[in-house]
Amino acid sequence: MEQFEVHILGCGSALPTTRHNASSQIIRVANELFMIDCGEGTQLQIRKSHQHFSRINNVFISHLHGDHCFGLMGIISTFGLLGRKHPLHIHAHPMLQTILKPQLDYFCQGMHYEVVLHSIDPKKNSIIYEDNNVTVETLPLNHRIPCCGFLISEKPKKRHLRRDMAKYYRIPTYARQAIREGEDYTTPDGETIANERLTTPPDPSRSYAYCSDTTPAPAGLIERIKGVDLLYHEATFANSEMHRAKETFHSTAQQAAAVALEAEAKRLVIGHFSSRYDDESILLEEAQEIFPATILAKEGLTIKI
Amino acid sequence: MEQFEVHILGCGSALPTTRHNASSQIIRVANELFMIDCGEGTQLQIRKSHQHFSRINNVFISHLHGDHCFGLMGIISTFGLLGRKHPLHIHAHPMLQTILKPQLDYFCQGMHYEVVLHSIDPKKNSIIYEDNNVTVETLPLNHRIPCCGFLISEKPKKRHLRRDMAKYYRIPTYARQAIREGEDYTTPDGETIANERLTTPPDPSRSYAYCSDTTPAPAGLIERIKGVDLLYHEATFANSEMHRAKETFHSTAQQAAAVALEAEAKRLVIGHFSSRYDDESILLEEAQEIFPATILAKEGLTIKI
Repeated sequence: MEQFEVHILGCGSALPTTRHNASSQIIRVANELFMIDCGEGTQLQIRKSHQHFSRINNVFISHLHGDHCFGLMGIISTFGLLGRKHPLHIHAHPMLQTILKPQLDYFCQGMHYEVVLHSIDPKKNSIIYEDNNVTVETLPLNHRIPCCGFLISEKPKKRHLRRDMAKYYRIPTYARQAIREGEDYTTPDGETIANERLTTPPDPSRSYAYCSDTTPAPAGLIERIKGVDLLYHEATFANSEMHRAKETFHSTAQQAAAVALEAEAKRLVIGHFSSRYDDESILLEEAQEIFPATILAKEGLTIKI
Repeated sequence: MEQFEVHILGCGSALPTTRHNASSQIIRVANELFMIDCGEGTQLQIRKSHQHFSRINNVFISHLHGDHCFGLMGIISTFGLLGRKHPLHIHAHPMLQTILKPQLDYFCQGMHYEVVLHSIDPKKNSIIYEDNNVTVETLPLNHRIPCCGFLISEKPKKRHLRRDMAKYYRIPTYARQAIREGEDYTTPDGETIANERLTTPPDPSRSYAYCSDTTPAPAGLIERIKGVDLLYHEATFANSEMHRAKETFHSTAQQAAAVALEAEAKRLVIGHFSSRYDDESILLEEAQEIFPATILAKEGLTIKI
């Protein structure tokens, strides 16, 4: 199967700590790298992770709090210094245009590539990116400012052509693509061979949902991420700080787990930890009580989907 | 003597590496912390250094290249989150106003302190800050964009009142300050005691010069930093990259050393290392050939003056 993995660059929250970086992750699907969020220091985290900077073509920003976007100018400048030629697409709330424009005008003079800002409406569930392999959809969330998560879904894949049948019927190369897409095959003699005899079912299409920052289960979210293979959900606080979670429009680890359970997610990774925790085991324990297939995010962690 | 020390937070150059952070340092004079430059990730470096965030009241930005200022918004936001009440003064090229204003307007709503931007003219040598203990002056440098260094100088200090004489003449407390400032003392009997008999000379006034980024020895620099106790000078390249230094308006380590020698600096610390060096010993060796009292900057290094 094609690669589909999540690489955590940062999973802290607003206040910097020596343990966690601000929010950012890289999703590798096939050979494309998508970035979700870009807190301060993200470019250094990429450098540490040995990911290829140049393969990042799309950056999705969940919301315009500093710990999710203050690393953008650093990345943009560094791409310029590295001689990037192809455009970088940034998908974010339209306000980013106002914030970034004066910086782009000043710092990016003479850069040989274009930064293309795409406005997204975080209140709507829409497909904001699509290529041959995947779609990326917004997932409206509920935070203090407009905020959305992202659902990255593989498109339906092609069926597998059975080698034995391809050989038996001497199916020419040019005809194989159509068969993999579900068509029957007609031999030079005029005989029609049903697709089911020639192929086996395609690999399953996998999906990944990123939900940070939000109160738990805003309207419609559960249905939209139903059956997701991997859910990243913020878990800023432990149960004991429930009141604080409510006040600040965040979730507790247990609430994140409840979302995973209700959405029938296969696995859950929690992140966006408050700086008050020197050790997140309390968050993990509380989440696992509800949803055992939970792990803690950590800088440098790669999760295969 | 009062504290006067330089704490290196970052001494890399434009491209991020896993070895060096972007430029930033904290200068502690008496109990005041001054920040010079603020590249991306600076707030995390402060956190690691266990310096007190809240004591930083003045930030001096040498020039508006990203590796010297992309950390500003992170610091400003974090100060807000930490409940700062007292103003933060940022001294920089006037263009910073244009770049920062939209970000301050958006990200700093509801913050309980003021960010005060002070415009400096990097082409002029002027005193841009002054308090009871120190002055901060701009040092015009020569880089691709307007750029200045900074000279932090202790003001002349008070003379030391000799304990034995104070006791002998029973000098009352209220009269001591004036004597420390150089006045003679008149006893209740009308006898005048010369200041030289009552006091010993004051501690020397120390100074620190920060010169990054620049071609070596721009007009007037040497005279302005003459006899400085500690000189931080950029040393982006080794001798073998002299042409590159020239092209990019930077200095080699040996050129930095020649500046220190000519300026009769007491000590030199070199920094702003190009990302091409995995090991800066070549830079150190080349500098020490000219100016033996050279050390390499390093994240976490504290140099007492």
